[in-house]
Amino acid sequence: MSEQEKKPVTAGFVVVGDEILSGRTKDKNIGYLADFLTEIGIDLSEVRIVPDKQEMIVEAVNTLRARYTYVFTSGGIGPTHDDITADAIAAAFGVPIDKDPRAMAILEAHYPPGEFTPARQRMARIPEGADLIENSASAAPGFRMGNVHVMAGVPYIMQTMLDAIAPTLEGGDKMHSQSIDVPLPESRIAEKLAIVQENHPKSSIGSYPKAKDGVFTTQIVVRSRSLDVLRDATSAVEALVAAALGKSI
Amino acid sequence: MSEQEKKPVTAGFVVVGDEILSGRTKDKNIGYLADFLTEIGIDLSEVRIVPDKQEMIVEAVNTLRARYTYVFTSGGIGPTHDDITADAIAAAFGVPIDKDPRAMAILEAHYPPGEFTPARQRMARIPEGADLIENSASAAPGFRMGNVHVMAGVPYIMQTMLDAIAPTLEGGDKMHSQSIDVPLPESRIAEKLAIVQENHPKSSIGSYPKAKDGVFTTQIVVRSRSLDVLRDATSAVEALVAAALGKSI
Repeated sequence: MSEQEKKPVTAGFVVVGDEILSGRTKDKNIGYLADFLTEIGIDLSEVRIVPDKQEMIVEAVNTLRARYTYVFTSGGIGPTHDDITADAIAAAFGVPIDKDPRAMAILEAHYPPGEFTPARQRMARIPEGADLIENSASAAPGFRMGNVHVMAGVPYIMQTMLDAIAPTLEGGDKMHSQSIDVPLPESRIAEKLAIVQENHPKSSIGSYPKAKDGVFTTQIVVRSRSLDVLRDATSAVEALVAAALGKSI
Repeated sequence: MSEQEKKPVTAGFVVVGDEILSGRTKDKNIGYLADFLTEIGIDLSEVRIVPDKQEMIVEAVNTLRARYTYVFTSGGIGPTHDDITADAIAAAFGVPIDKDPRAMAILEAHYPPGEFTPARQRMARIPEGADLIENSASAAPGFRMGNVHVMAGVPYIMQTMLDAIAPTLEGGDKMHSQSIDVPLPESRIAEKLAIVQENHPKSSIGSYPKAKDGVFTTQIVVRSRSLDVLRDATSAVEALVAAALGKSI
């Protein structure tokens, strides 16, 4: 291969929130983070949604931080009693947690005099040794501890924090992709598609059924970090689709 | 307490799909299953999204089936080479997998003569000892193996399968909930809310910040399996909100 390959850069995502598990809130952060990471060449490899329980957060964070290049978390860093993510991260890393002077200064400057209440001071609790993540939306910072990035759960605040984190992330080779819409149910092309996948092992070929008004069609998505491989595999898929449709190409 | 308490019934959900992790497809099944289970008194306790890799599916399924009353999976049971969930479940349970005569009969009857191709026959591969789950949308069945329910990933097919599964699930006491909208940022009520939570340990009080046009408000959700507990805790929250707003009640 002529193209230089970098090692894949991977990520895990821990969504903290009883409200997602109960159905009260519909998650919007997973799809956003997936798009964001794909765009900069990082593979989101696993997501866990866990309740507001310290031992569950600790288990998920410790498993994923050992397994992937980066870990992201969302949720549980507000001022109320059910916001326990910062304490859970301190427990996961075995470090103390207390009000952080940098975070205290940011929040003190943010609130009108006399309104930086003890509840709000809770948002300044940061595990020892963490770097702050700027929150240009609502001041209360996130933080980075080792390879774990702790962000707010409110989507637009999480997105703001991701923008602040982005320059610090080292992306891998970008994953390129090509979609092919096929006006046939996937079972009509499945066998030949498996052969194309076998012949193009450096590509990843996904087949996604769609149904509308009782008509089944398929979207095939070819993905590769190499544009050469992507082009070859896509051509092979297009040839098999043309053959299945009875067209010559 | 006058009300009889049942043991909580819990569930884990494994979403199988590279397409969710890459961002190409935005998941709709997690929120749907969360609502569905909450409605019948089952606590969705953990969700994992894993790629189309056998060892990842096996790990998630084996961990969650030991931990929760029920496990559900979605995705990866179609006819193409990237559909590996049935094989992964067989591996997780250490049982053989082959074309199942019941599934073969269903699919044979579904397709026009001569169109039940080898690729489509792949959808009849079911681990030994599993029960089939009816798919009234597109015939190809899901299956139940032990406490694990294996469903399609296409949302309306998953929903059809859930309807077929529902009568076989034993729900717990339904979780009741009450929402209170508070026109204040959550930090204004956080301390008193923590005390209410402490005084009502049989309830679960969540606080969810909202922001619109730069104005922060809060939704408080009180949840309990006991209507008595729910009523008492809700009254206490309403009293603290009224006090914070300077109203008498």
